[in-house]
Amino acid sequence: MKKSLLFSSLLLAAGITGSAFAQEPVDAAMNAKLREEGLNHSKVMEIAFNMTDVAGPRLTGSPGLKRAQEWAVKQLTAYGMSNAKREPWGVKFGKGWEVQKNYAAITTPYYHAIIAVPKAWTASTNGLIKGDVVLVKADTTTDLDKYKGKLAGKIVIFDAASLPERAIRADMARYTDEQLAEMAKAVMAPAGGAGQGRRGGAGAFGAGNPQFAALRRQMAMRGAITNFIKNEHAGLVLSQARGTDGTVFTTNGASYRDTAAIAGPELETSAEDYQRILRLVRAGHKVEMEAEIKTKFDTDDMEGYNVVAEIPGTDKNLKDQLVMIGGHFDSWHGGTGATDNAAGSAVMMEAMRILKAVGYKPKRTIRIALWSGEEQGLFGSHYYVDKHFGDRTTMKLLPDQAKISAYYNLDNGTGKIRGIYLQGNEEARPIFQAWLDPFKDLGAGYVTISNTGGTDHQSFDAVGIPGFQYIQDGMDYNTRTHHSNEDTYDRLVENDLKQAATIVASFVYHTAERKDMIPRKPLPTPPPAGAQGGARGGR
Amino acid sequence: MKKSLLFSSLLLAAGITGSAFAQEPVDAAMNAKLREEGLNHSKVMEIAFNMTDVAGPRLTGSPGLKRAQEWAVKQLTAYGMSNAKREPWGVKFGKGWEVQKNYAAITTPYYHAIIAVPKAWTASTNGLIKGDVVLVKADTTTDLDKYKGKLAGKIVIFDAASLPERAIRADMARYTDEQLAEMAKAVMAPAGGAGQGRRGGAGAFGAGNPQFAALRRQMAMRGAITNFIKNEHAGLVLSQARGTDGTVFTTNGASYRDTAAIAGPELETSAEDYQRILRLVRAGHKVEMEAEIKTKFDTDDMEGYNVVAEIPGTDKNLKDQLVMIGGHFDSWHGGTGATDNAAGSAVMMEAMRILKAVGYKPKRTIRIALWSGEEQGLFGSHYYVDKHFGDRTTMKLLPDQAKISAYYNLDNGTGKIRGIYLQGNEEARPIFQAWLDPFKDLGAGYVTISNTGGTDHQSFDAVGIPGFQYIQDGMDYNTRTHHSNEDTYDRLVENDLKQAATIVASFVYHTAERKDMIPRKPLPTPPPAGAQGGARGGR
Repeated sequence: MKKSLLFSSLLLAAGITGSAFAQEPVDAAMNAKLREEGLNHSKVMEIAFNMTDVAGPRLTGSPGLKRAQEWAVKQLTAYGMSNAKREPWGVKFGKGWEVQKNYAAITTPYYHAIIAVPKAWTASTNGLIKGDVVLVKADTTTDLDKYKGKLAGKIVIFDAASLPERAIRADMARYTDEQLAEMAKAVMAPAGGAGQGRRGGAGAFGAGNPQFAALRRQMAMRGAITNFIKNEHAGLVLSQARGTDGTVFTTNGASYRDTAAIAGPELETSAEDYQRILRLVRAGHKVEMEAEIKTKFDTDDMEGYNVVAEIPGTDKNLKDQLVMIGGHFDSWHGGTGATDNAAGSAVMMEAMRILKAVGYKPKRTIRIALWSGEEQGLFGSHYYVDKHFGDRTTMKLLPDQAKISAYYNLDNGTGKIRGIYLQGNEEARPIFQAWLDPFKDLGAGYVTISNTGGTDHQSFDAVGIPGFQYIQDGMDYNTRTHHSNEDTYDRLVENDLKQAATIVASFVYHTAERKDMIPRKPLPTPPPAGAQGGARGGR
Repeated sequence: MKKSLLFSSLLLAAGITGSAFAQEPVDAAMNAKLREEGLNHSKVMEIAFNMTDVAGPRLTGSPGLKRAQEWAVKQLTAYGMSNAKREPWGVKFGKGWEVQKNYAAITTPYYHAIIAVPKAWTASTNGLIKGDVVLVKADTTTDLDKYKGKLAGKIVIFDAASLPERAIRADMARYTDEQLAEMAKAVMAPAGGAGQGRRGGAGAFGAGNPQFAALRRQMAMRGAITNFIKNEHAGLVLSQARGTDGTVFTTNGASYRDTAAIAGPELETSAEDYQRILRLVRAGHKVEMEAEIKTKFDTDDMEGYNVVAEIPGTDKNLKDQLVMIGGHFDSWHGGTGATDNAAGSAVMMEAMRILKAVGYKPKRTIRIALWSGEEQGLFGSHYYVDKHFGDRTTMKLLPDQAKISAYYNLDNGTGKIRGIYLQGNEEARPIFQAWLDPFKDLGAGYVTISNTGGTDHQSFDAVGIPGFQYIQDGMDYNTRTHHSNEDTYDRLVENDLKQAATIVASFVYHTAERKDMIPRKPLPTPPPAGAQGGARGGR
């Protein structure tokens, strides 16, 4: 099929008038097929159901993640993908961990079961415990002395700010066209370029930053308090969770590393329950609680794994080249990681299914990767890139680095795709603009030069591979779902996921068929020796 | 103090220009004192803290309500009130009930502790139970046959609609001035007049309504299912709660009456948890749960009680006349009834405290009443009015009916006062408008002829006593707090409660000092014999 002819027919079909992207061909006939399959015969909710409700939480190293990965391998194979497998990172992750019992309640001055979630990688209570709540206030290690011998078997809480007055503001938001148009106008900052999205180097909290010393003191104090409480054999620690209305945002309370000491039991407690206990204790009321937390550590297999699968290329000159798509598959443990990131993972699996379902035989090989360890530091993608494409620290590249056209990532919740971040790659703009324009009727169409950070496309960008993340409507990602106990299947917006899968399928198709690979930015300069590289610092 | 002089100084102080309320005097000097005490030396949050965090849930008949009532009597006395006491209704309420253990979790396909609250007046589980979840689908009693012998020890769920897609809308709202101005323009419907706010008679679901038969069939079917499940010895019933994000709106699952049969254990389950279980079971996955619910019934004292207290009148001609204020003190059991209705109760207690604190000696006697049994049918106020003022059914009035000037009620959450509902009493409009105008700077000032229903002022209105409820900003009353597990202290907006207490204190002052009593509507016609009267039908 001739591309110039195709493009003309697209212009007619989509009613697009001439513009800057006039050179970039778009296959309107294929887009029509992808839309039909993606919008009218979608399996994305079924996929998401299996990842969330059926598999449960998918904390890296947990049995839940393993179940979900094994299901994904089976399902991708059933969809007709090749070489579907759990691929080890080649690097140890650490301890598996899951919750097996989670119960806590106030019993004096009256009974009230609290909403709380054990912090990840914290220990069990000593069976069903009962004890007074003690408020520990300590700014210095000397302040801790007065609690010596007084915490054994107690439930410990700390001072925490009361909740701010609730604002008249919706939890949910979509971008307006005006906001997106503004984003599209952005220009690259002078310091921009590949690798800019990196975290963890000598950045905001580098040694030169005046806040650094204070932060370090604060963290040291927190460490001292943790050790003190553990040595005093407190029964349980409560900490106040972010979130309101019964929504609890979860974190980790200890390190997953195999060498890390086991931390005592700690419950991230809903803000309202925490504040109630705190107000009572502050006012001098006796508060007693009972709790039973059982968590299980798993050290049999501490390797990290990603899931990968392919649709092999068929063009003899191009089949060794790659188009990759992905999203992280691991989640936090309080919910079932529906928007973070079963949404992105399901969209990517569905995009693969759509491409297969329309009978597409790609020129280049298409590979999906569902990462793990993202929440602890983009580990899955980082080690995958290390192994297959090159080392970001030394910038020693492997041959396949030259053969991958692009990596597309989705990891910002359930919101539909509105456009794409160029990560500073201006040459990709007319290409992506052309590919997005046929989806204007579905709300997409915006291209911004800006970087977005915090997820796995950065691992690719760090070694000079065009790595992109889509612009998505924010929905209630930051207010309700991102890392919370309420990140469950009900949060998923079916029409948004269908739209996203259809657009990703189209991007993958056009990247796989394109005459040339996606243009590249200049190779990034390796960071100074000793810096952390692109991975986020996990504890 | 001369009223005409006062009025002029008010006009100057508040910058009010002449208007329709020129005849109704306002005491600007007293208002200044009340504002100083109410806005700058408030105890309203301390009062609310004791009602909520300290006392716990205040379900009618429960130990929590008794604790709170005993505290209120003590505190009102400490504030200098006379005759503070728990006053029996003179009528039996029914069984006390409270939760003493509340734990439930999915254990297969993975562990997940659910957010749920036992329905009020339901029974305990048989200790810690473990069982499969069974979906019961039955439109007719015949449909139940297929479950015969299959439910023993099981956890039972029913079909329930999935959650609607979440809307982009704030949980919280305040009235705009435009909305309030619109309300103030309302005219009374021709059928209006005293008693219009009544519920439970031959109204919307009276026997003449075509929906009545369907509703009765539905309720009969629900009763049949409940009996069937109980006879089959199911371990636990789950029902889907209204609410999202971990917020659970609670109800009762059985009657409080002493003659009522004990219903089996039933958990009102957060929508997200319920839907997760339902989706899994529908898709054929085995779901196992464990649960331990312990509830305690109390039949030692089944009498109902209100709390009352007074500031005695000092004018020899007027001291036998009354001004009453109140709000219901009982709550549902999932939270601590902070907005429903510790808020209104605390505002009323604080209004009394303010009046006492400024050294006010009223002409008429001022009485506060904190009702109970409101949630089951406005019982506390109903029986109080029966005993003190007259029988609404026969319209036989007692002498004190002629001596009470007005009753003011507050029971619409934590939002500040924006105005007052006249309940069809047009003659009260210029009076209340004059009394509200000095509080325009605090957001009040609107008077509407409309009725508002559903709470205790109706008990007074039903026997021809001017009974009023204030217009309050809705806040998140309907979306988050009203009868929910999240109706806790953190929902209270301090500035709003201070404003409300100050305005109520001013209304009480002006009513107690006023030359005449508040004008009355014509006496309502007694409802037809056999109708339910003003009390809501509890189960």
